[in-house]
Amino acid sequence: MDTDPPLQLRVFDLNCWAIRYLSKVRQERIGMIGDTLSQEGFDLALLQEVWSERDYCELKQKLTACYPYSHYFKSGVIGSGFCMFSRYPILDTFLYQYSLNGYPYMLQHGDWFCGKAVGLLIIKICGIIFHVYVTHLLAEYCRDKDAYLPHRVVQAWELAQFIQHTSKGADVVLLGGDLNMHPGDIGIRLLRGWTGLRDSFADADRFEGCEDGYTLVPANCFTVNKELQPFPLGIRIDYILYKGLSRFVVKCDSLVTTTGTAPGKSIPYSDHEAVIATLSVQRREEAKGSSGSAVGPELVDVVNEARAEVRVRLHAAERQRYSNGRMASLALLLLLLQAAMGLSSLAGWDSPQPFPKFSSSLLSLLATVVLLLWMGLYVFHTIEVRVLQGTEEQMRLALQVLQDKLSSM
Amino acid sequence: MDTDPPLQLRVFDLNCWAIRYLSKVRQERIGMIGDTLSQEGFDLALLQEVWSERDYCELKQKLTACYPYSHYFKSGVIGSGFCMFSRYPILDTFLYQYSLNGYPYMLQHGDWFCGKAVGLLIIKICGIIFHVYVTHLLAEYCRDKDAYLPHRVVQAWELAQFIQHTSKGADVVLLGGDLNMHPGDIGIRLLRGWTGLRDSFADADRFEGCEDGYTLVPANCFTVNKELQPFPLGIRIDYILYKGLSRFVVKCDSLVTTTGTAPGKSIPYSDHEAVIATLSVQRREEAKGSSGSAVGPELVDVVNEARAEVRVRLHAAERQRYSNGRMASLALLLLLLQAAMGLSSLAGWDSPQPFPKFSSSLLSLLATVVLLLWMGLYVFHTIEVRVLQGTEEQMRLALQVLQDKLSSM
Repeated sequence: MDTDPPLQLRVFDLNCWAIRYLSKVRQERIGMIGDTLSQEGFDLALLQEVWSERDYCELKQKLTACYPYSHYFKSGVIGSGFCMFSRYPILDTFLYQYSLNGYPYMLQHGDWFCGKAVGLLIIKICGIIFHVYVTHLLAEYCRDKDAYLPHRVVQAWELAQFIQHTSKGADVVLLGGDLNMHPGDIGIRLLRGWTGLRDSFADADRFEGCEDGYTLVPANCFTVNKELQPFPLGIRIDYILYKGLSRFVVKCDSLVTTTGTAPGKSIPYSDHEAVIATLSVQRREEAKGSSGSAVGPELVDVVNEARAEVRVRLHAAERQRYSNGRMASLALLLLLLQAAMGLSSLAGWDSPQPFPKFSSSLLSLLATVVLLLWMGLYVFHTIEVRVLQGTEEQMRLALQVLQDKLSSM
Repeated sequence: MDTDPPLQLRVFDLNCWAIRYLSKVRQERIGMIGDTLSQEGFDLALLQEVWSERDYCELKQKLTACYPYSHYFKSGVIGSGFCMFSRYPILDTFLYQYSLNGYPYMLQHGDWFCGKAVGLLIIKICGIIFHVYVTHLLAEYCRDKDAYLPHRVVQAWELAQFIQHTSKGADVVLLGGDLNMHPGDIGIRLLRGWTGLRDSFADADRFEGCEDGYTLVPANCFTVNKELQPFPLGIRIDYILYKGLSRFVVKCDSLVTTTGTAPGKSIPYSDHEAVIATLSVQRREEAKGSSGSAVGPELVDVVNEARAEVRVRLHAAERQRYSNGRMASLALLLLLLQAAMGLSSLAGWDSPQPFPKFSSSLLSLLATVVLLLWMGLYVFHTIEVRVLQGTEEQMRLALQVLQDKLSSM
């Protein structure tokens, strides 16, 4: 069996930037993506930011002949946005929604409403079990003052844990998606260190595309150049990661990215570049015992660094929760006072009314709105505090187990 | 190796009913539970409804000598409520929060705020890897008109899926918890059918305790007898389920439940009875291929039944979302109208004011409250609809794969 020719697999990954009414020339681009997937006949296509189910259905209709199997993951208020097209049967699917995903009051970013998650698809190709993960992590709006960094670190940790816990039955693990992290960021070091996943860009035998594998580049006409100011050549935030388990070795024969425009077209597929990896999967002569990450002192440092990030946010979230609780209590107090004054005047205790009725009822309106909103915020930050405490505790345990392993080596 | 004596394991499971300020004689009962765990020296103790972290810390302090390893799972606004004490080291933990968990506006039940979840603990005992799951599903308040049934079915499905996807690396799977389902309910048939978990009550060589293994009984002085009216002898909703994978066989030597009062005490540990299983784990001579459920036509029927339940709720949730959206839109319209009237009077267009200022501002208050609340409800039901659609789609795929398997058998 070990003399079998390797299985070759072409995987397409793209953040499609398909937000109804907001993304430019969306319909034309969805049409282009469908045409390309149809012509190229990849084995798997992992798409993110297909926010509208109508767009997914349009793609599905177009691609049925070439990709008979597909799945759209549903979560959150406006969906997870990711879907997958496959030439091979999907045996099972599973979705894990990240515990933290930004703040509901940051309406201008809207991440909280998206239900960011990681989707797992189990696919059997020529008798080999593939666990294919597709995800999209919290965006980075300002690298210098990144309010979302701790949430993204928690997401990267949950993603790493989810992959480790659900991939024991797999022969090959694939992860594709917009991770919104640069290759050296703490989240990606944590994810790769913990899972042992390899980076198709770093390991590809041949590479063709944007310099350094960038997937957000100024040459793309949809890129907001202001956002790329600190990185004038571009950044790499879209990845295809992989590993073979036990009896399988996976290597990346080639990696290609689009370079600003779609091949043969005048516009790009999206504001991100597409990433196309050609992987070859070979059966090993002998099964290898462990398939996990290489435990080393550097992994301890990475987990420690991530834990420190979580701890900083934990303290801030506790402070925010406290001040939200105080504000809600003040509003409640004000409402109770007004109710008491209203009741006393109804009961005929003719104390002189300190405010005119109109101002008084306006004040009630304000107090009610403040009470409802700040109570909601209090609940939100309480959940955030608990998740951060839980993650910190999990990381503490992980560090302990790592150090035990290291000392027994 | 297969001639090794079997490993014996004593597992304690209890829903502790420890809600601060609400549960009767809570502190005394927590003390009693701690004393018993300490004296009996079980191998594992799985506790639910330990809502206060202070209670957990008290238990932890008391039990450090006997159970050096413990974990408290954090989720939701007031925590998951479950924790675990172990004589053996915990290697890893992972938490999966159920996508649906009741309704935020059902304040009298409060389930939505609890962050119901399933916690996984990985424990190594004498070289055998145990995946121990602890959970607490949505309560059933009225069996005849159970508004929570579809959410509980979704939870049972997610629990089954979570166990199947995360237990591939285990030798033995254990699940303990308050499942809030009778043994013949659709959710428990789905869970057991899908995972192949065995029921320690049905399989125990020896049983001692309440009739039919009931864990909510009228003899318990904390039981609200009205709730047990349709079942005068009691109901069984707390379980210890198990299975051995691949190279291991697990059997239940004995199962014991408490019978209304704690042994040697005048009051019970909780309003639920404790369940204590003695399991023996034996290495098989030869590894067995599949560890999953036995695929048969009856499993197809069970998944179909669960899917029908999900579909009924999906239609109802869609209707609720629509009416919530309509209500929020009307409130917004009213507010806009009032704002226009206010602006016109400020601009000096002296149209006669149709309402007195006081009534008008009271109306604004009402419209604002309605807008905020109903918008929140709209968002909630949108999430519910998406989760139900996703679950229904997952079940459809599962049925397809099951039927393919059956037809190829």
